[in-house]
Amino acid sequence: MEIPNFASFEFMISKNQIQYIKSLSINKFRRTHREFIAEGPKIIDELINSPFNVKGIFAQAEWININGSALPNDTSITEVSEKELDRISNLITPNQVLAVIEMPENKKPPKTINDLVLMLDDISDPGNMGAIIRTADWFGIQTIICSENCVDIYNPKVVQATMGSIFRVGVHYENLEMFLSKNSSGKIVYGAFQDGKNIYQTALNKKSLVVIGNESKGISKDIIPYITDKVSIPAYTFSNRQSAESLNASIATALICAEFRRQSK
Amino acid sequence: MEIPNFASFEFMISKNQIQYIKSLSINKFRRTHREFIAEGPKIIDELINSPFNVKGIFAQAEWININGSALPNDTSITEVSEKELDRISNLITPNQVLAVIEMPENKKPPKTINDLVLMLDDISDPGNMGAIIRTADWFGIQTIICSENCVDIYNPKVVQATMGSIFRVGVHYENLEMFLSKNSSGKIVYGAFQDGKNIYQTALNKKSLVVIGNESKGISKDIIPYITDKVSIPAYTFSNRQSAESLNASIATALICAEFRRQSK
Repeated sequence: MEIPNFASFEFMISKNQIQYIKSLSINKFRRTHREFIAEGPKIIDELINSPFNVKGIFAQAEWININGSALPNDTSITEVSEKELDRISNLITPNQVLAVIEMPENKKPPKTINDLVLMLDDISDPGNMGAIIRTADWFGIQTIICSENCVDIYNPKVVQATMGSIFRVGVHYENLEMFLSKNSSGKIVYGAFQDGKNIYQTALNKKSLVVIGNESKGISKDIIPYITDKVSIPAYTFSNRQSAESLNASIATALICAEFRRQSK
Repeated sequence: MEIPNFASFEFMISKNQIQYIKSLSINKFRRTHREFIAEGPKIIDELINSPFNVKGIFAQAEWININGSALPNDTSITEVSEKELDRISNLITPNQVLAVIEMPENKKPPKTINDLVLMLDDISDPGNMGAIIRTADWFGIQTIICSENCVDIYNPKVVQATMGSIFRVGVHYENLEMFLSKNSSGKIVYGAFQDGKNIYQTALNKKSLVVIGNESKGISKDIIPYITDKVSIPAYTFSNRQSAESLNASIATALICAEFRRQSK
């Protein structure tokens, strides 16, 4: 497939552009072209105020009229009709604007741990990944290290679920075991386990790593030896009532991050 | 469409059954037949141990061999091949067993508030709704009151996201404004707002209602007058760094529930 040349301002989207944009929903094509998409005024507003490189904006006239002047001079803008936007959109209700964005290089994570770093061990659900990035941003966590089997953060469902936080939080893909074997010596590595110490009764050290396990399998066997401190979020049960066996991965992450921040205030 | 008669034990699924089960992904047909579906060994295990009435089990031989004897005597079981299960399943990877379940009546919520009650104001995303029910179950919350515009909890995506908690938590649909006007007098009604009081610095009263707003619009204008106590989950920012504008609705709910439970331990 030929990569279309984004012109500076066009009043029509080409077939070739439509095909190209649609291909970016698929990981293989994102990897080949190193570009991804984001949609909707709120997320695009965050994009414009980020260091990410916008390759093309496809928007309805109303959006361009209001926001066009805020875009960098070298942005290629294509005006699209509602129908055309619907053809390129991944949303059930397309929302005014779609951007094609350059994927940044996968930089190495910082070596010094000055603050909480999240490590995601095979998080596979796009909604969870997006919610984790958004939550990390809320709690001022700047670094997330993903295992190589985590869902791609440039998957459109992840991008949309971050609500723009993807443009602020540093996300790095690493072989977690190799990373931990090289970098975790002398450091605290927390992991959430059913039999861990009640997180609300543990003095948490924020210069640490926190490992979050896969949605159904939990933390990998190979990673467990690196965990120095097992913690747990206590369930609230009464009488003999049975309760949920576990929490959703993004919710567990949020509860852990919140407790770190609560304690350090 | 004719409702198929679930036989007691069949070695073959009929075309009519396939069509019927597929129709239950659609709200209109669920309302007409007052039945819904759930899938996978973990959730079906929770179902079997619940008071819900199972109308039919469609499972692969391996599952029936292990679990068949745990089913009530009057359960109709149909053995299905992997291919047949794939035809009736809503999952990307069908998982051994699917159940057709009778929808319980929408009972009135209890009038006395002895413990935290969640009120969901137009929660529309099935993943959020499922995660909220699962989280409520984890934190021992027994009553959730949904506004009439909330997503249907028997939507298959919601059912799967609850991981079985849907069979334990009492969920009621009500006109929230009418419910509050009748039942909130003299009671504390919490709502999460950006300008609310820091939840970690507020003594929370657990005999109360907590309103959770819609994913994009927040708490409805008509409900706001009933909120007696505005609370907020503080973001963690440093220097001039911008952070996420808001949290995902299910994550905000979890953080609020966790703080109620942490304070009452």
